[in-house]
Amino acid sequence: MPRKSLPLEEVYGLLEPGPVVLLTTAGSERPNIMTMSWHTMMEFEPPLVGCVISDRNYSFGLLDASGECVINIPTVEMSETVVGCGNTSGADTDKFTTFHLTPVPAALVGAPLIAECHANLECRVVDRQMVASYSLFVLEVVKAWIDPAVKHPRTLHHRGYGNFMVAGETIKLRSKMK
Amino acid sequence: MPRKSLPLEEVYGLLEPGPVVLLTTAGSERPNIMTMSWHTMMEFEPPLVGCVISDRNYSFGLLDASGECVINIPTVEMSETVVGCGNTSGADTDKFTTFHLTPVPAALVGAPLIAECHANLECRVVDRQMVASYSLFVLEVVKAWIDPAVKHPRTLHHRGYGNFMVAGETIKLRSKMK
Repeated sequence: MPRKSLPLEEVYGLLEPGPVVLLTTAGSERPNIMTMSWHTMMEFEPPLVGCVISDRNYSFGLLDASGECVINIPTVEMSETVVGCGNTSGADTDKFTTFHLTPVPAALVGAPLIAECHANLECRVVDRQMVASYSLFVLEVVKAWIDPAVKHPRTLHHRGYGNFMVAGETIKLRSKMK
Repeated sequence: MPRKSLPLEEVYGLLEPGPVVLLTTAGSERPNIMTMSWHTMMEFEPPLVGCVISDRNYSFGLLDASGECVINIPTVEMSETVVGCGNTSGADTDKFTTFHLTPVPAALVGAPLIAECHANLECRVVDRQMVASYSLFVLEVVKAWIDPAVKHPRTLHHRGYGNFMVAGETIKLRSKMK
């Protein structure tokens, strides 16, 4: 995809709607991918994101060791990939190969971007005080990329047990809310 | 609405898709309502929810003082209310009266449910260690209510500056993910 840099102050608009994301991490053998839904914006700029990653996930160790990751946002065309990455473990699966995904080097972190996703957020871990108690990492988005052709991404939103809501229409209301 | 108790283990399915919510708090003069999008699940059961509530919001003081709130989930029919509650302050506005909303007493907390919302989650603050640094409150959902007639709620998801994505179709994929 023809990737374009997104101003960091606009990052919240990608994550605030609550999409399922694919988190990539670098590893000594190979990079890994995990499917994740438990995240929230915590600050506009620099953009901070809180995400809960259980230590039962293979990605927990990779994120903890490297302190870096990329949040990739998939759309409905990638739904089988989203479920596949959620149902397998990086301990015994090379997910990029298994799910035919294309790793692209990031600009500022060691974890790769997923080329097939319309948005990619390069992140560094900036606070681990809630990792021991809640597995909550605070990430700072240091570089953001989007496919400018995707204006209304049909993101996936997990309702539980494989039920996903697909993003519908966008409406514009007279709001002063950022 | 004919409200029904929802098992606490099913609460995550309401919040994980990332809807805009209306947070109610009790006050000495009157209850307040704020529009909120920065929240994430943190544990399945008991359900824990992390939410970021800036101290610039009138609700910050009410939540901090009472330690209780209700997370109410609106659907697209309530979009003007969602924006109205986001553009006004409880410091000078009685939002239940202004936006013609019906307060219903909660079972376990002092903050009221909003009758017009299809789901209501009664919450207690259980951890404040990240309030000073990030305005992040950890809430435990102690009682959950839904309107059982609403199977596929057309929730609102904020993209920024008054642009809201409206929940579209639900698809079922073969997933082992809870």
